[in-house]
Amino acid sequence: MRQIGLREIEDIALGAALLGAGGGGDPYVGKLVAIGAVRECGPVTLLDPEEVPDDALIVPIAMMGAPTVLSEKAIGGNEYKTLYNMVSQFYGRKIYAFMPIEAGGVNSMLPIAAAARMGLPLVDADGMGRAFPELQMVTFTIGGISATPMALTDEKGNCVIFQTITNKWTEELARAVTMSCGGSVSVCLYVIDGKTLKEYAVKNIITRSEMLGRAIRNLKNSTEGTPEDVFFKTTEGFKLFKGKIVDVLRETRGAFNFGKVVLEGIGEYKGHNAHVEFQNENLLARVDGEIVATVPDLICLVDTETFVPVTTDGLKYGKRVFVVGLKCFEMWRTPKGLELVGPRYFGCNTDYIPVEDRVKGGRL
Amino acid sequence: MRQIGLREIEDIALGAALLGAGGGGDPYVGKLVAIGAVRECGPVTLLDPEEVPDDALIVPIAMMGAPTVLSEKAIGGNEYKTLYNMVSQFYGRKIYAFMPIEAGGVNSMLPIAAAARMGLPLVDADGMGRAFPELQMVTFTIGGISATPMALTDEKGNCVIFQTITNKWTEELARAVTMSCGGSVSVCLYVIDGKTLKEYAVKNIITRSEMLGRAIRNLKNSTEGTPEDVFFKTTEGFKLFKGKIVDVLRETRGAFNFGKVVLEGIGEYKGHNAHVEFQNENLLARVDGEIVATVPDLICLVDTETFVPVTTDGLKYGKRVFVVGLKCFEMWRTPKGLELVGPRYFGCNTDYIPVEDRVKGGRL
Repeated sequence: MRQIGLREIEDIALGAALLGAGGGGDPYVGKLVAIGAVRECGPVTLLDPEEVPDDALIVPIAMMGAPTVLSEKAIGGNEYKTLYNMVSQFYGRKIYAFMPIEAGGVNSMLPIAAAARMGLPLVDADGMGRAFPELQMVTFTIGGISATPMALTDEKGNCVIFQTITNKWTEELARAVTMSCGGSVSVCLYVIDGKTLKEYAVKNIITRSEMLGRAIRNLKNSTEGTPEDVFFKTTEGFKLFKGKIVDVLRETRGAFNFGKVVLEGIGEYKGHNAHVEFQNENLLARVDGEIVATVPDLICLVDTETFVPVTTDGLKYGKRVFVVGLKCFEMWRTPKGLELVGPRYFGCNTDYIPVEDRVKGGRL
Repeated sequence: MRQIGLREIEDIALGAALLGAGGGGDPYVGKLVAIGAVRECGPVTLLDPEEVPDDALIVPIAMMGAPTVLSEKAIGGNEYKTLYNMVSQFYGRKIYAFMPIEAGGVNSMLPIAAAARMGLPLVDADGMGRAFPELQMVTFTIGGISATPMALTDEKGNCVIFQTITNKWTEELARAVTMSCGGSVSVCLYVIDGKTLKEYAVKNIITRSEMLGRAIRNLKNSTEGTPEDVFFKTTEGFKLFKGKIVDVLRETRGAFNFGKVVLEGIGEYKGHNAHVEFQNENLLARVDGEIVATVPDLICLVDTETFVPVTTDGLKYGKRVFVVGLKCFEMWRTPKGLELVGPRYFGCNTDYIPVEDRVKGGRL
């Protein structure tokens, strides 16, 4: 148990941008919401999952919809109270703690705001260990846990409760309501007890996010090596490429941003080329035509100077980036996990091979 | 209190086709559903609204979406049980009786099936006295009563509860879910107590529907005059025109069927022409360019031989019809009623004038 204040929020937001793997939305707006809530209501208590009683009611909180909408259509402030009341009434029980369902991107921040405003603790865990585009893509689905009953509210005060036959149907129906509400809403889903939390959640991911953010922030002052060396050492990331963005192809299909970024090697990668395909999040990276990493491992682009993560929205011609591979949560590497979020689910015609095996021996 | 059996269902369905005012869907498929339920579970008890205790929980039942979908995507049979459980759980009380929210069209039939299957009585009332295309177009909205909490279920078992800030938002969100569920769902909405029922519902509308249906069925055997005379006398309808359909214009915009049917006079109307504009239901009738009736009064087309109502879906070149005007429920004629369902709401550039005033003195 420890306190999350303004400094911790800054670091978590920076780490969450890396865990977003290019997607999940820039945590910047979410950070402002979390900082506002903590300034007004005080710091948030962060619980280690092991501190949570088995029968406690744990409620994941997230925003659903397009993160970009958040900058035009703010969180009203009453959403968390409304969700709290809906869930408490539906279960007829008190909520023990909130948690994020998605540690990457903007959804890392909103549960902090909710916990601050409702005076509840936050559990140091999530259901992805990164960001994913669809609601059923959580470790709890592997455990056969239903996303529903799921509570949804918008900033105007409209409330909806879903109880669906599959998590894919939850995605379908909640997505339709989200669109009708103007493109972004606040939700509680995968409401679980402490026992399930300990069995299926990605534990201590907020602490990992904070550590990643702090590491990036402190690179310049490090005495343990070059920023580049320290970055890859601290993050346990695999250096997949270093290059200059020479082309960005984008296409919006359904509710998703599809695209591809093309890189021309620089430094030790001069004369080589790479590209990264994405669907909201980065899905697959190739160097000289050969696959070096795929989803569900995290493929992140970071600025070569500041090491600040670059989201797919922020890709620009001429920007110099490292392509970084990070191991995903081990549960995603099981057959059930790969069925949900493996490369083939996203239409990539390749089996999953862990990033550490793909790069074994160092290819360049 | 009386029993509704197979004979009554036949008559109610025929009368409901007239009250549909061209829309609301052909009650035929709904009739099969109601007959199936009554054959299996026995007749339904029909309660006069005055027999309902003030504090009784009354639950209107309807299908939402395109009635035409019903012929391809049947009612599964478990929907009513699911809705019953959802509403009982949400309110923590027993349901006293079901009622229709819409007496015109297919929604006249489904509450009979629900009442039969759940062994509950049905109240002889609705919230429209006819058919209307949107969910907020009920007398209860005039009374400031919320459509929500509203329960929705599909034939697959997906369940949604809505609680919205206005009835217009209920329409918006429930419509989005309905589309995602394949175009038709079963719903409970405007759940009310007996006191509100007595104050705002259109009372004894099922009995009126049955009377209209029986009158049409018995026209051929009548000894009180020609079928035409008896039809207009029994229904208290205004004869607006008699003609042959010479053109039907249709356009689908949003979730609605817009269009216009053009008539060439026959019999005493020879040399004259008329047209009727519709949006699902008939909205406005003109004879020789002059308006003779508008929504919310009912504009119905009936076959000149059989007097069977013709829905807007069933309009065909060469068909000979009477255009009939029926007075709407008096609450629709108040300023609040006309704001909800007056001609201007539907984009007709005219004030509402009651059909009996429009035709005063007999124009032809």
